Amino acid sequence: MTPIITAFERSPDGGKGLARDMRVRWALEEVGQPYDVRLVSFREMKEPEHRARHPFGQIPTYEEGDLVLFESGAIVLHVAERRAGLLPDDPNARARAIAWMFAALGTVEPPILERATAVIAERDKPWTKERLPLVDDRIRVRLGDLSAHLGGADWLDGGFSAGDLLMVHALLRLGASGLLDEYPNLAAYVARAQARPAYQRAFEAQRAVFTGESPRS
Amino acid sequence: MTPIITAFERSPDGGKGLARDMRVRWALEEVGQPYDVRLVSFREMKEPEHRARHPFGQIPTYEEGDLVLFESGAIVLHVAERRAGLLPDDPNARARAIAWMFAALGTVEPPILERATAVIAERDKPWTKERLPLVDDRIRVRLGDLSAHLGGADWLDGGFSAGDLLMVHALLRLGASGLLDEYPNLAAYVARAQARPAYQRAFEAQRAVFTGESPRS
Repeated sequence: MTPIITAFERSPDGGKGLARDMRVRWALEEVGQPYDVRLVSFREMKEPEHRARHPFGQIPTYEEGDLVLFESGAIVLHVAERRAGLLPDDPNARARAIAWMFAALGTVEPPILERATAVIAERDKPWTKERLPLVDDRIRVRLGDLSAHLGGADWLDGGFSAGDLLMVHALLRLGASGLLDEYPNLAAYVARAQARPAYQRAFEAQRAVFTGESPRS
Repeated sequence: MTPIITAFERSPDGGKGLARDMRVRWALEEVGQPYDVRLVSFREMKEPEHRARHPFGQIPTYEEGDLVLFESGAIVLHVAERRAGLLPDDPNARARAIAWMFAALGTVEPPILERATAVIAERDKPWTKERLPLVDDRIRVRLGDLSAHLGGADWLDGGFSAGDLLMVHALLRLGASGLLDEYPNLAAYVARAQARPAYQRAFEAQRAVFTGESPRS
């Protein structure tokens, strides 16, 4: 049965791959699982039909037979548990890869999201110019620790895993801030992930929605 | 083999159970798994010995034989996968419970942490008084959706699960803000969880560290 995911009808980032459906698309590409996409408008996301899939009215969701899932991290973990390619077989290494998934979403991403909120939702507030450097310093604490852990390795713990997938996607949101460039090994880590064929297929698929090269399903 | 977790030698909350070792203690109590505790000072947390356990120099960590884990969400999931009591047996219900774990840490907790940062790290900043209501409104968006989903149910999806455990602990940080009281079913949900014997045992264990009623291991 082909799973169905949801994605923005019009992505706020203009197809840069920053929306969270990119994480699920990438994971599905890594394990070789075909999928269908249901596009939802901002209005549809907040209506009962979509809220039955996602209590917080967001994307992505994942439907597979009777199973309906929300939260990109949970969907990536579900995909990783069902097909090989995103979690190691060794039980201890598997547990550590899952720890990196939680670290990406619970430790590294929150200050990055706080920055996004500051530059979008609080853009016009009088304090944002003075406050942003404080937020950036909180991001640097995380990036410094992550850079020290990664060192000269290719991935966070052995081979590429779902932990790397979520970490890289969280780091991508730093975009034009320049913060990532302060940590050359992290910038190289992100570029290494983006060079993966599965990333590129997922990126093109989400971009096609924006450019209109793919029909709305 | 008895697992060892780490916790603050001196908890910044004075034993109110808001530190993240509480999540792991609670999970271990729910499944009936005895554990040992290694207390670490703020200085020790940033030293190489502890960073080998936790790349971001935080607590909690979890050691069990050769396995060393960090991130409270990952540790709770590991505990839940090893012993019955925190995840349903049905595969779809299990996947949904894990989705609620990620929702707690990735969707509900971030604005709550942003509030904590505002009232602690940015307490003396001239903008905080005017900015705090904006942060509170972002929290209300999440609480409103969560309250609508919960409705009159006892738990988020069927029986009590690791998803409820992490959600309740994230909500507890709202503490004296009064925000939780705006959603009576959420306040009752948190109280229901706190009444669980496993919660109470975990709470007393972490409080004993602060009151000095328990020897440092």
